[in-house]
Amino acid sequence: MNKIEPRTLPGFMELLPNDQVKFNLMKEKIAHSYEKFGFLPLDTPAIELSEVLLAKAGGETEKQIYRFQKGEADLSLRFDHTVPLAKYVSLYQGELSFPFKRYAIGKVYRGEKAQKGRYREFYQCDIDVIGDGEFSIINDAEMPNIIYNTFKDLGFDNFTICINNRKILNGLFESLGLIEKTTDILRIIDKIEKIGENAVIDELKKLGVEKAATDSIIKFVTITGKTDEKISALKELGIQNELFKTGVNELTDVVKYLKVLGMPEEYFTVDLKIARGLDYYTGTVYETFLNEYRNLGSICSGGRYDNLAEYYTDKKLPGVGISIGLTRLFYQLSEINQIKETKETISKVLVVPMDESLGEALKIANKLREGGINTDIYLEEAKIKKKMKYADKWKIPYVIIVGEEEIATKILTLKNMETGEQKKLTIDEIINEIK
Amino acid sequence: MNKIEPRTLPGFMELLPNDQVKFNLMKEKIAHSYEKFGFLPLDTPAIELSEVLLAKAGGETEKQIYRFQKGEADLSLRFDHTVPLAKYVSLYQGELSFPFKRYAIGKVYRGEKAQKGRYREFYQCDIDVIGDGEFSIINDAEMPNIIYNTFKDLGFDNFTICINNRKILNGLFESLGLIEKTTDILRIIDKIEKIGENAVIDELKKLGVEKAATDSIIKFVTITGKTDEKISALKELGIQNELFKTGVNELTDVVKYLKVLGMPEEYFTVDLKIARGLDYYTGTVYETFLNEYRNLGSICSGGRYDNLAEYYTDKKLPGVGISIGLTRLFYQLSEINQIKETKETISKVLVVPMDESLGEALKIANKLREGGINTDIYLEEAKIKKKMKYADKWKIPYVIIVGEEEIATKILTLKNMETGEQKKLTIDEIINEIK
Repeated sequence: MNKIEPRTLPGFMELLPNDQVKFNLMKEKIAHSYEKFGFLPLDTPAIELSEVLLAKAGGETEKQIYRFQKGEADLSLRFDHTVPLAKYVSLYQGELSFPFKRYAIGKVYRGEKAQKGRYREFYQCDIDVIGDGEFSIINDAEMPNIIYNTFKDLGFDNFTICINNRKILNGLFESLGLIEKTTDILRIIDKIEKIGENAVIDELKKLGVEKAATDSIIKFVTITGKTDEKISALKELGIQNELFKTGVNELTDVVKYLKVLGMPEEYFTVDLKIARGLDYYTGTVYETFLNEYRNLGSICSGGRYDNLAEYYTDKKLPGVGISIGLTRLFYQLSEINQIKETKETISKVLVVPMDESLGEALKIANKLREGGINTDIYLEEAKIKKKMKYADKWKIPYVIIVGEEEIATKILTLKNMETGEQKKLTIDEIINEIK
Repeated sequence: MNKIEPRTLPGFMELLPNDQVKFNLMKEKIAHSYEKFGFLPLDTPAIELSEVLLAKAGGETEKQIYRFQKGEADLSLRFDHTVPLAKYVSLYQGELSFPFKRYAIGKVYRGEKAQKGRYREFYQCDIDVIGDGEFSIINDAEMPNIIYNTFKDLGFDNFTICINNRKILNGLFESLGLIEKTTDILRIIDKIEKIGENAVIDELKKLGVEKAATDSIIKFVTITGKTDEKISALKELGIQNELFKTGVNELTDVVKYLKVLGMPEEYFTVDLKIARGLDYYTGTVYETFLNEYRNLGSICSGGRYDNLAEYYTDKKLPGVGISIGLTRLFYQLSEINQIKETKETISKVLVVPMDESLGEALKIANKLREGGINTDIYLEEAKIKKKMKYADKWKIPYVIIVGEEEIATKILTLKNMETGEQKKLTIDEIINEIK
């Protein structure tokens, strides 16, 4: 028979089982952390009508969409969890209760250029809180609190959550009459640590920004100090712009509530340069960096938006959310050898029957499972060495060998695969030992 | 602004949060049950090259595929977990250890006709054990054991796992020279309980089956009794066909090991009529029915196949597996009001701050979370009634109201939302109470 070459598409992560176990563990920890904060699970379809999914999209996003025809229908694969959330909340608004807090952990699709570390199918792990009309600024302070707890749960302890407010940036540019140049200016000031102050001044000049405005921008962007000092410095800039002032007040409140929440100061900072996407966020924005691997980019980002679903409904739905791109993060952590090693394996025990003891071995395996212990059993005929290799391969920490003697005496040998230590125990003792 | 009508495609399940919680609970229980038996998780892409995914497909399946072009690539969405498994095992065979046991729980896609209870996107929850060349029949006995334990874990206790062996059917038809009519004969005998023996005889006659053969088929299909009696009766039919004999021997072994495994006899039976798909399975086959709702059809099916991946590799990979179509099952159970009610909610407590006590309420919420209790907090200004309604809506079992008095005395009021009972407790007492 002619064979088809088995292969997986580039840009699609496919893991070997031991890595999959680690990936799933991270995914579960994120879900548990989100649930700890009261977020409800949602699972929207991966396929939507293009008309619905692309109500807002445009530019780069639209080009990347997996879009196709099925029968009469023009369909697209979801490219994030935010648009499906906007659709969901608009569609079921009468059946929900606001503020509506949901998490979504699932695959999204973007037909990006194939490139190392760039995925076309990837897990996004999102939370959002959606308000009905009014929406407290304290929600903006809960987000860094959740990021902090989630990454702590994931085993990280050297990271910084950077916080800013889009109103501050927009107010500044508005006061300088530079609102149309926002994108370019942001791109330039973002490089200040890399290229230095003078190079930034040169680039702003080339962009046609006048000296007085450039001075203001540089003064703004070089504000340093502790969080409170930065906020004081912002106020002292004396910028007479309502949007700017509102932004500074919101940022002040967020920082105040972060302290109330007992969040350690070394884990968050005000970073006046960060802006996230341009049209989307309207208030607080977040980025998160691993301090030792800042070059990985932000590993958890998000922000506040004024109106989630204006394309679908007249109801004003402000909200705030964050997202972890788990597939990319897992890849990046693998590359730098920072996937946390885990003792968690699927099976805790491998039962290895000798030739004539299959029936008894099956009973033992079942008893262990009834005792709450995940148990694998090696049912094929093979040399003992091969059976032990199987346990090694899947990192199963214990092996129980079942032969005639063990059956006769009801005393089993429990082998610890890591230490090599062997203990003679009854089945009940084994259950206690492993638990 | 012109609004787009928010809507979800027909055939795509989208649940409200309380139902999603129940759905996820079932999904997690299935995963835990599969892990208890030592199955490793895999998560293959939802998109594959059409050439790879459709190596074997044909007929109905191919028509239902979501297939589309992206750039130069001819792509398809996976329609089951078996083909991706065949690809995976062929591709990574050198990095795996056999027998290879994996579970896959994820969405698959079939563009079926829109119809009540038929889904185009649905969760399949699969396990398979793949052998390398040789493959013990005991694996076939483990499957009903796993089905039994999984449905018990899901809260069911009135179901029957029907077991048969394709070799018995194929051997019978081979011995009668009727192998080409297999499909039609199976369709006819499947109806015997509904239409009666005489109608079956008539239909077989119309099909051109001769009287002697019809007699044999009727004798075969009307075998009754306990499992052991059925197997004895099969042997006594005196059918001189090697395939038939092998099938009977395999079935005998499966039943023997099911007894060794301690599986209660009321939960399984030999049903000589079941065949599952026609080309796919080659030995043991399974279907599972809820005794009180047999009309739902099989809720967990599967079987043994000789060669999983012959389209991709020369390596002979026999295997056995089962699958639960969770989305359809959840729909069916909802329709007959048989979704198990659960006390499990995401949040165990809602913290409700009074006007001036937001900061303190945030601290209390964080303390509860640190104590391992999933906690929601109501941050918006609203009347107390609205806040209580929120707790009701998401079935949050406890509410803590935080006002000035509570802050001053450090004694909080814990309200049980089900009984209405209120207790005055410290935060630590509350954590103990809820745990």
